[in-house]
Amino acid sequence: MSDSKPFRPKARRPRGFEDKSAAVIRAERRLIEAAVRVYDAFGFEPLDTPAFEYADALGKFLPDEERPNEGVFALQDDDGQWMALRYDLTAPLARYVAENFQHIAKPFRRYQTGEVWRNEKPGPGRFRQFIQCDADSVGAASPTADAEMIAMAADVMRAAGLKDGEYMIRVNDRRILDGVLESIGAGRPDTRMRVLRAIDKLDRLGREGVEQLLGAGRKDESGDFTEGAGLDAKGAAAVLAFIDAAGGGRADVLAALSPLAGNSEAGRAGLAALAEIDACLTALGVGEGRAVFDPSVVRGLGYYTGPVFEAELLTQASYADGSPMRFGSVGGGGRYDDLVARFTGQTVPATGFSFGVSRFAAALAALGYGETAEAAPLAVVLTLDREYAAESQAMAAELRAAGLRAEAHPGGGNMGKQLKYADRREAAVAVIVGEDERAAGQVTVKNLRRGAAVSDRAGSREDWLKQQAEQAQITVARAEMAARVLEMIRKP
Amino acid sequence: MSDSKPFRPKARRPRGFEDKSAAVIRAERRLIEAAVRVYDAFGFEPLDTPAFEYADALGKFLPDEERPNEGVFALQDDDGQWMALRYDLTAPLARYVAENFQHIAKPFRRYQTGEVWRNEKPGPGRFRQFIQCDADSVGAASPTADAEMIAMAADVMRAAGLKDGEYMIRVNDRRILDGVLESIGAGRPDTRMRVLRAIDKLDRLGREGVEQLLGAGRKDESGDFTEGAGLDAKGAAAVLAFIDAAGGGRADVLAALSPLAGNSEAGRAGLAALAEIDACLTALGVGEGRAVFDPSVVRGLGYYTGPVFEAELLTQASYADGSPMRFGSVGGGGRYDDLVARFTGQTVPATGFSFGVSRFAAALAALGYGETAEAAPLAVVLTLDREYAAESQAMAAELRAAGLRAEAHPGGGNMGKQLKYADRREAAVAVIVGEDERAAGQVTVKNLRRGAAVSDRAGSREDWLKQQAEQAQITVARAEMAARVLEMIRKP
Repeated sequence: MSDSKPFRPKARRPRGFEDKSAAVIRAERRLIEAAVRVYDAFGFEPLDTPAFEYADALGKFLPDEERPNEGVFALQDDDGQWMALRYDLTAPLARYVAENFQHIAKPFRRYQTGEVWRNEKPGPGRFRQFIQCDADSVGAASPTADAEMIAMAADVMRAAGLKDGEYMIRVNDRRILDGVLESIGAGRPDTRMRVLRAIDKLDRLGREGVEQLLGAGRKDESGDFTEGAGLDAKGAAAVLAFIDAAGGGRADVLAALSPLAGNSEAGRAGLAALAEIDACLTALGVGEGRAVFDPSVVRGLGYYTGPVFEAELLTQASYADGSPMRFGSVGGGGRYDDLVARFTGQTVPATGFSFGVSRFAAALAALGYGETAEAAPLAVVLTLDREYAAESQAMAAELRAAGLRAEAHPGGGNMGKQLKYADRREAAVAVIVGEDERAAGQVTVKNLRRGAAVSDRAGSREDWLKQQAEQAQITVARAEMAARVLEMIRKP
Repeated sequence: MSDSKPFRPKARRPRGFEDKSAAVIRAERRLIEAAVRVYDAFGFEPLDTPAFEYADALGKFLPDEERPNEGVFALQDDDGQWMALRYDLTAPLARYVAENFQHIAKPFRRYQTGEVWRNEKPGPGRFRQFIQCDADSVGAASPTADAEMIAMAADVMRAAGLKDGEYMIRVNDRRILDGVLESIGAGRPDTRMRVLRAIDKLDRLGREGVEQLLGAGRKDESGDFTEGAGLDAKGAAAVLAFIDAAGGGRADVLAALSPLAGNSEAGRAGLAALAEIDACLTALGVGEGRAVFDPSVVRGLGYYTGPVFEAELLTQASYADGSPMRFGSVGGGGRYDDLVARFTGQTVPATGFSFGVSRFAAALAALGYGETAEAAPLAVVLTLDREYAAESQAMAAELRAAGLRAEAHPGGGNMGKQLKYADRREAAVAVIVGEDERAAGQVTVKNLRRGAAVSDRAGSREDWLKQQAEQAQITVARAEMAARVLEMIRKP
């Protein structure tokens, strides 16, 4: 990059990262504002941790547990310490709580919205940076704290514009499965993890695939073999019966699970927690149409210790070819009583919920909920005469004062080009300042939205512009400009 | 980190990074919302680029130009390419524009809020991660685009709650100094850069220090010597006269600068641009009490090519010891016509403004503007009896429905501890559910804010709690709870 021989780097976005458009940003912002309203109302306070943590503080809780300590963006600080960009907002919270434990009023309820980074292989629609929006409650061992998380998640779905019936919070307690496994003599940690993973694949592989993974293993279409949990037929049947307990009301599911898990301590603890969550959800106004118990919810992360939850979109949408869109889970969480203990050795009860903002906002947009996120109507002031630049800025200021978004074109090109610009900006109205009009104390106001409505019937864009030039514009006194623009915009 | 021999990392925040408190986050959020309202109104659209760029795309435009390519957090992607975290939001925009030039409607006006990172030596109050909020206009060569930037900056200051007279946007055009240097025969690039740096230090070193840096050089208190620009006495006098032109109305400053710079092409271009900016600012309602011309504004960054601007807080505040707080500039920007050309070789006119959100919000808080950023009043529902957990959650839900922030304590401890918690949470009201009251269909509502007002006169916190227990609480029917809580909060 010396001055004598200029180096020209190629302009390219790094692999697996995205530039976000205005529509995406506005949809995400709207969703975050909805979540923050709910978290604020529940008395949660914002806390923001930095993007970096020391690598050892992040631990090996990455979703892909088969590659511990991989999957993060790490670098060495100039004092030799390894730092990594956070891959979620929970591990940094555990660091914060451990570091400031004595000074925090408990229960400590906080929320945070922020980017997280995963150093994974990029793929279509799979980005290495995305936004999460979390709420956590630290220091509260009671299942009421879990119920509060579930209720907040359900309320965020509503605040995001969804109707009841279009979403569901699915709830489980991991200890219930522990109880089932204990009662069939399959309580070893590696067996448990394999069973959890098998259940987690119910959506993708179906009941038969899960049954294979619970037993000897499963060969997929490509011939790859995944080792199973090694349960015998009776054991696998018990786990499948456990999954099958889903579907009824919350009390029905508890009644169905009780004989499967109730004769072990872990199972009883899980069932008792769900019973208390049920009562608390009812008190919070979260009925069975908004949150259900579903034993197939296990959540992938290794750090959950009890109740786990997942927020799911139930509404259906289709691609242009008719194939259904699958949105799946847009958020999840659970109790993680051991995460702070990684630092201090002391168990600190904690529970939390995390929304995947980017995924959730994309799903809402695909479902047609994005429209309300649009900005106010835009007016563009056009002029070819550079000497009217200040005047057209003054007109834009006037339109802003009237409550519109408004901008003045900085000049240049010809009127056709400037009109095309206004059109690409999806402006509702163009205000045109020409020499003759100015001499007469007038301006031309052009309705660009009316044009948009009839544009199908016109030929080329140029035809359409010409056609509209005669139809949808009025010449008004300069002093009435703002009032007439508002009038034009308010017309249906 | 094997299971048999647990590794316990020390919980510590990485050097030079901060955990942000609720008050700071709310103040920053309020400021960002104010800026976004202004940018939206001016017809700017949000565009978010990712945190990472390829290192060659960031170039050597870091503020510390003596260490090119240092000062960023960089790492190698698994395909061997070097990526770095953005150090500002302008360099990534230039990459975006170069990459998408054909598809962008020009002028392209965008805004972005986001974290930036600088790999610098951490110091007190100097963080390696902070938030910037930028607006940019790409494709508009006219000074009206610069005027628009200045007007937006002034409007953001107002939207942030400042009164006119409490802030000032200071504006200059770098080409005017180029004209001055040309006319004294000191137009070489390295001389120019040294003169720019000398002027940039006016605030810190005063007129005498600048004079030394314009000439042979300057030795500071520690004995370190900084080489000067090497101007002779006449040359230095011309530059000082240039600086001294500041102070009057916008037309006065232009009149004072004209004889110093008007006999060179660069100087005339700069003066003409400022004259057009003046007219346009007046049209936009930005008078001389909000934006002035000040030749000492040069901005450190090497990439500015014409008009430069700076937003300054004029209000004064003092530390507890009476020494004055200096806030200096809370934002700045300018025209950078060559930044996209780094990629394409083609000059693309562009101008922008950037607020330092963290610094600006901290200054506003120090000046006492933070109070309006506070959240709604908080009510905390307290109960010792676990069987009332669901009931206290239902009461919290009722209080939320009434428009308050409300939370139910999850139980545990004793009432003294729970009240202390409510106090630390700065709750306005505590609602207490006890066994006897519940039997009678009643609850106790306790005014914690009244307590706060008289707490100076009480002895220990415990005395105060006891004293308040008799004074500021009422027992009310359960059905009237929400109404009575609202009543208590609305009382002065």
